[in-house]
Amino acid sequence: MIQSDLIIRDFNLIREKSPLVHNITNYVVMNNTANALLSIGASPVMAHSIDEVEEMASIASSLVLNIGTLSKEWIKSMILAGRTALKNGIPIILDPVGAGATSFRTKTCFTLIEECHPTIIRGNASEIMTLAHQSNSCKGVDSIASSFQAKDAALLLAKELNSVVVVSGETDYITDGNKLICIKNGSSLMSKVTGMGCTATAITGAFAAVDEDPFQSAVSAMAVMGITGELAAINAKGPGTMQLNFLDELYLLSGEKIKDRLKAE
Amino acid sequence: MIQSDLIIRDFNLIREKSPLVHNITNYVVMNNTANALLSIGASPVMAHSIDEVEEMASIASSLVLNIGTLSKEWIKSMILAGRTALKNGIPIILDPVGAGATSFRTKTCFTLIEECHPTIIRGNASEIMTLAHQSNSCKGVDSIASSFQAKDAALLLAKELNSVVVVSGETDYITDGNKLICIKNGSSLMSKVTGMGCTATAITGAFAAVDEDPFQSAVSAMAVMGITGELAAINAKGPGTMQLNFLDELYLLSGEKIKDRLKAE
Amino acid sequence: MIQSDLIIRDFNLIREKSPLVHNITNYVVMNNTANALLSIGASPVMAHSIDEVEEMASIASSLVLNIGTLSKEWIKSMILAGRTALKNGIPIILDPVGAGATSFRTKTCFTLIEECHPTIIRGNASEIMTLAHQSNSCKGVDSIASSFQAKDAALLLAKELNSVVVVSGETDYITDGNKLICIKNGSSLMSKVTGMGCTATAITGAFAAVDEDPFQSAVSAMAVMGITGELAAINAKGPGTMQLNFLDELYLLSGEKIKDRLKAE
Repeated sequence: MIQSDLIIRDFNLIREKSPLVHNITNYVVMNNTANALLSIGASPVMAHSIDEVEEMASIASSLVLNIGTLSKEWIKSMILAGRTALKNGIPIILDPVGAGATSFRTKTCFTLIEECHPTIIRGNASEIMTLAHQSNSCKGVDSIASSFQAKDAALLLAKELNSVVVVSGETDYITDGNKLICIKNGSSLMSKVTGMGCTATAITGAFAAVDEDPFQSAVSAMAVMGITGELAAINAKGPGTMQLNFLDELYLLSGEKIKDRLKAE
Repeated sequence: MIQSDLIIRDFNLIREKSPLVHNITNYVVMNNTANALLSIGASPVMAHSIDEVEEMASIASSLVLNIGTLSKEWIKSMILAGRTALKNGIPIILDPVGAGATSFRTKTCFTLIEECHPTIIRGNASEIMTLAHQSNSCKGVDSIASSFQAKDAALLLAKELNSVVVVSGETDYITDGNKLICIKNGSSLMSKVTGMGCTATAITGAFAAVDEDPFQSAVSAMAVMGITGELAAINAKGPGTMQLNFLDELYLLSGEKIKDRLKAE
Repeated sequence: MIQSDLIIRDFNLIREKSPLVHNITNYVVMNNTANALLSIGASPVMAHSIDEVEEMASIASSLVLNIGTLSKEWIKSMILAGRTALKNGIPIILDPVGAGATSFRTKTCFTLIEECHPTIIRGNASEIMTLAHQSNSCKGVDSIASSFQAKDAALLLAKELNSVVVVSGETDYITDGNKLICIKNGSSLMSKVTGMGCTATAITGAFAAVDEDPFQSAVSAMAVMGITGELAAINAKGPGTMQLNFLDELYLLSGEKIKDRLKAE
């Protein structure tokens, strides 16, 4: 159904342009996401101070906002960076880590959505259901619901916000409120490595930086994540080797591998 | 002397229940400890903002407080989270990183002990000696004293606070002020990987979440840490592979391996 | 031209003395740099709170200041720690991450230089050119200029500040304003692992802690970085294995390997 050509084109564009991706993200995953962005060929920068986010967001090709270890000060910076990006037409990717787990996280997500109008939102089932005002079912930052259960919430949320919404899980769903694409790549070991979802969001930032179509950016990103995860799992003994292999395989990824392995519909 | 049965039971309970462990910990080790908790089968969450720690601690099955990169704001959050856990009967595990190195760290530990009454305290020899009002001998966050030298301090501290105290080192000592158990598993390479002590504390949080007996929780945790460290060291070339293998081996650990390798008395 | 003897002497001194290196550094690399310092045999400590940096800097053998994820509060702590180190004759190593990318970063560097007079400054080409008041060419925290293009800027800056200046890149240049040494070791894969530059700065902190001559410290550090990078790249499949192998190889490094591989002039 969907063709790998556009995914491969986007993937090659990242390598060619090495876009600057500005991340305001959480402490747990900063190292992983910076490494993933380097491995795919992008240029990551982490900057959170209110004194520089405006300037940094202005020179970036995309902005990733991730609330994994949020605090009041960081939210202020996220809003300022988000407004700057919005004004300059730079795509914004929001990762609503733990939306539903505490009211602070849920409220912050709604604030960021209202203030910055994110181009793409990527979360797990529980997070997306929370943002779509459906009863959530999370345990901390993990989802108990399956991605399939959040499919309708994703469609509704995308339509409501006029954004692209991604639900990650065993199957990944990407929708703009009308179109819906499922990616069935990936490995169960990915959920045993912290921050794999955050990495998916950062990688989406790299794709959004080189492709003006946010729906296609999100599809390309999730396909590349899933395929890389599959390749990484082949020789992984556990979460340690999985985390390592993921970076190696992302670095070694090729159009041919994408074409061979893509399972989408 | 001690049997592996209880350790194996606790270990299996973590896999079965996947308890939510709330960590307010340091920047250096957040990624490692989250990954270690995932590898053993628990569900980690990192949240430090004063605006959400009360809510997060309320839904967690245990709370880990680690002062490795502390600051005034974070201490306030630790106290609030700790009081919440105390009120709700949720076990609190304190890691007094660098107690004795600066007066700020030492004082903060005494404040946290007074305000939150931690269920279990796990530190290296120098940290435990400092908390027991004995002359400490540390270099930064590393101990110069051996764990054996801190054995009496651990007994005193446990009796004084009515808490379980763990001293990590070549031999690990676990005491509730009366009983004392030594775990002789482990590998010298563990001290060459940053945050292995912090990982031990986080893992103790996972065990305390599933076993109401804090003494047994701490014994089980230190046994699993030591055995996993031994297994990880077998094919480690150095600290890099050691860190990686540790996560793999924790993921691959089984009751049988625990039974075969336990060296305790 | 230059001999490996002094490098090997410094390297052995780190193993022997295990100096305490106080780091006020960025969130992205804290884990990596702590592990690199442990792997080479030093004792790392991370402490950033205004309430303890004075005390921590006083007991340390060197101080590393790295502005990779800076904020106003952290700058205050860096200045206080820096002044303490300056007063006590403890060497200060500055990593001006992203100088030139935002005015906040550039200004902060000049403040730190004025307040703390760093003993050694290590940056990439764009950062050093910015500090030497030359038109910079950076993309976020990455340099577009080559280290060769920044050679003159390094000489000027070193002379102006009476400090040792290091430009990292394909060739590393180390100068005190008069002498200039080039290290031609290393691997292109190093630029695909986040924080390799920050690791170089931290390692320089370890060398400066055991050698009173800052020029030789910097030469030794960059030689060890490059040689370790080369050794790590031999069996690296990509950035994941590279990061891992780097720690292993630093741990396994020997005087003989340094002697065999050194490419300097």
